[in-house]
Amino acid sequence: MTAGLPITLDLVKAAAVTIRGHVLRTPMAAAPRLSAMTGADVWVKYENLQVTNAFKERGALNRLAALSEDERRRGVVTLSAGNHAQALACHAQRLGVPATIVMPRTTPFTKVASTEAFGATVLLEGETVAECRAVADDLAERDGLTLIHPYDDPLVMAGQGTVALEMLEDRPDLDCLIVPVGGGGLISGIAIAARAVKPDIEIIGVQTALYASMAAALAGEPTQCGGDTLAEGIAVKNVSNTAISVLKSLGVDVMVVDEAAIERAIYAYLVRLKTLAEGAGAAGLAALFSDAARFSGRKVGLVLTGGNIDPRLLSAITVRALEREDRVVAFRITVRDRPGELGRVATVIGREGANILDVSHQRLLLDVPAMRATTDITIETRDGNHAKRIRHALEAEGMMVTRLDPLQRPAS
Amino acid sequence: MTAGLPITLDLVKAAAVTIRGHVLRTPMAAAPRLSAMTGADVWVKYENLQVTNAFKERGALNRLAALSEDERRRGVVTLSAGNHAQALACHAQRLGVPATIVMPRTTPFTKVASTEAFGATVLLEGETVAECRAVADDLAERDGLTLIHPYDDPLVMAGQGTVALEMLEDRPDLDCLIVPVGGGGLISGIAIAARAVKPDIEIIGVQTALYASMAAALAGEPTQCGGDTLAEGIAVKNVSNTAISVLKSLGVDVMVVDEAAIERAIYAYLVRLKTLAEGAGAAGLAALFSDAARFSGRKVGLVLTGGNIDPRLLSAITVRALEREDRVVAFRITVRDRPGELGRVATVIGREGANILDVSHQRLLLDVPAMRATTDITIETRDGNHAKRIRHALEAEGMMVTRLDPLQRPAS
Repeated sequence: MTAGLPITLDLVKAAAVTIRGHVLRTPMAAAPRLSAMTGADVWVKYENLQVTNAFKERGALNRLAALSEDERRRGVVTLSAGNHAQALACHAQRLGVPATIVMPRTTPFTKVASTEAFGATVLLEGETVAECRAVADDLAERDGLTLIHPYDDPLVMAGQGTVALEMLEDRPDLDCLIVPVGGGGLISGIAIAARAVKPDIEIIGVQTALYASMAAALAGEPTQCGGDTLAEGIAVKNVSNTAISVLKSLGVDVMVVDEAAIERAIYAYLVRLKTLAEGAGAAGLAALFSDAARFSGRKVGLVLTGGNIDPRLLSAITVRALEREDRVVAFRITVRDRPGELGRVATVIGREGANILDVSHQRLLLDVPAMRATTDITIETRDGNHAKRIRHALEAEGMMVTRLDPLQRPAS
Repeated sequence: MTAGLPITLDLVKAAAVTIRGHVLRTPMAAAPRLSAMTGADVWVKYENLQVTNAFKERGALNRLAALSEDERRRGVVTLSAGNHAQALACHAQRLGVPATIVMPRTTPFTKVASTEAFGATVLLEGETVAECRAVADDLAERDGLTLIHPYDDPLVMAGQGTVALEMLEDRPDLDCLIVPVGGGGLISGIAIAARAVKPDIEIIGVQTALYASMAAALAGEPTQCGGDTLAEGIAVKNVSNTAISVLKSLGVDVMVVDEAAIERAIYAYLVRLKTLAEGAGAAGLAALFSDAARFSGRKVGLVLTGGNIDPRLLSAITVRALEREDRVVAFRITVRDRPGELGRVATVIGREGANILDVSHQRLLLDVPAMRATTDITIETRDGNHAKRIRHALEAEGMMVTRLDPLQRPAS
């Protein structure tokens, strides 16, 4: 069954020895609140607690450790704007290996700065991954650098596979593992290691519908990738051919989830487990949400692969969730344009027991009817019924009230 | 040495058996990024991963488990607006014990709703803790309910002490434990258990300067408590007398930290460890930040006691931190009032490589000079030098630029 696989359990075990003490052995913990939401017995492997907040250090370090003295001296190069960049930079610095990271020109500052903080040289070159790859290849050729690919490398795969060893060490009774899939390095390492240790365990991959490249490859179908996804960490068009054959030969299924499920999963990790998941990191939970019946009653291990989410994006997701739960509600209230009207609005809302979060009172803008003033007011409510009661109380005072979508409301 | 202590190691060990399988054995993990920031070897005990996201379940369940059949049938009552309320409600529901929770009238909805979600009856009565206590005592008297105090109870203390047993099981080589102090239940249980297991371990309590009640009691000094603190979970005026004598007899020191250190600690947990700490939960790290020299080179265990922080507060802390780092900068720009001026502003900013986060362009407001328009613009910058360069570029175009504090800026 394992003939033709690119790596063996022994290689993953060797990786575990190599990285021990240098990469965090992350905790796995039961998540009863997620179990209650889904009907599965949910366990979470917190790879977001790694120093660079993602599992990528495992593969990067395992590959770095295999460099010859000469290769170490000349240095390494990779193409990545994401977690692999930081992981490689971090461990290269620790080992005294010069690291050059090629990132697309559009990479956000924070990612460049986080990588440079580990002493790596960041080159902003090209618009696409393919262009970055060409630059990296040129550098490797010109300066004798070793290219350490983010996923298409057996030693990287073996390093990522150590996640599965740890999960099954902690909970040998897990029935299945749900694993986000980008290029395919993590799931290949996990599938090979987990199946070797426990042949009947089910391994399930997850991709976002906007980048369902691996799911399409397994189905032998063409696919279109593209669009803005919350899960940029797994937005990979060109998956590893090695990974495709691993998943085929081990019968690994890849589920596809939509952006709404990913958003819901990020929020659930935040409010239920008080932990930060980036979109890619939350994809496993998104899959569980998307097909809870499939996992009902089973012991499921989720790999929370990374936590590198922009705090501003997190804030936006929070507000959207509160709004969906009718706990943050915005009204546009039109009142007569005379002194005391804003006071009446605020008094009614206070009497009904809601907190005011934001007020924008406009008397001068051109879209306000003459002799009227408009107040956009965002309030914190208990639930939908509470919001309705407040609205009726305002209308009973002769005010015109429209409910606004706080996220689509003009910035005022 | 342990004569006169209210509980023994055996009672804590019994509590560990009682709660096993019903309260999460939370992970403890190394935090190399915090070690790098502080010079200590930092380990974090993630009590925020409990179902109700705080350690309080340990003590609540241990106390509930000691009820007689008759007491269970009649039910329990407590006074708490915080984590003890949810913890008691959660485990009372599981055990089929009716629970009544008295909270101050000013308690936020979300806390009421979270507690009611566990089937408890919430009574909003009184303004102060003392008034809530009186109501709870009356109910206990009238209906034969058992009062389960949040901290001033030996079985509650013994339950909380299990945190220390787990920490020392995982890392017997910890040199000291830093523990947030509210009423004194957690630190009493931890100090007694940890010292019994490892007599030379140092136990350090932490309070916020606004509520330094335990520190004052140990020093034999009077203190004034009050004010808005980020750490409401440890904002306790009346600490347990039992706890005072425990801390005195075991020589436990209580450090006092300011709100700025707590805010910094919440943010560090968020961005460095990708985990949510409420203010009280972050107090241990705040102490480490406040006196790093004291802990340099030592193996320090931080109890991250809880994660129940309002997501909106978290957002505010994030923006303030980015602003302090000069990564979010707001300018008020005054330009001539004619078509195309906003375009010029945005073009200059784009050319300098900064992202625009928020724009408020005002042509009608009364404080804008005649023939001028004002734009308040919030941008994302790399650092302070980048912000300066952008400002100079705008001024070179003949615009008047003032830097604003984004948080003190008028709401529009």
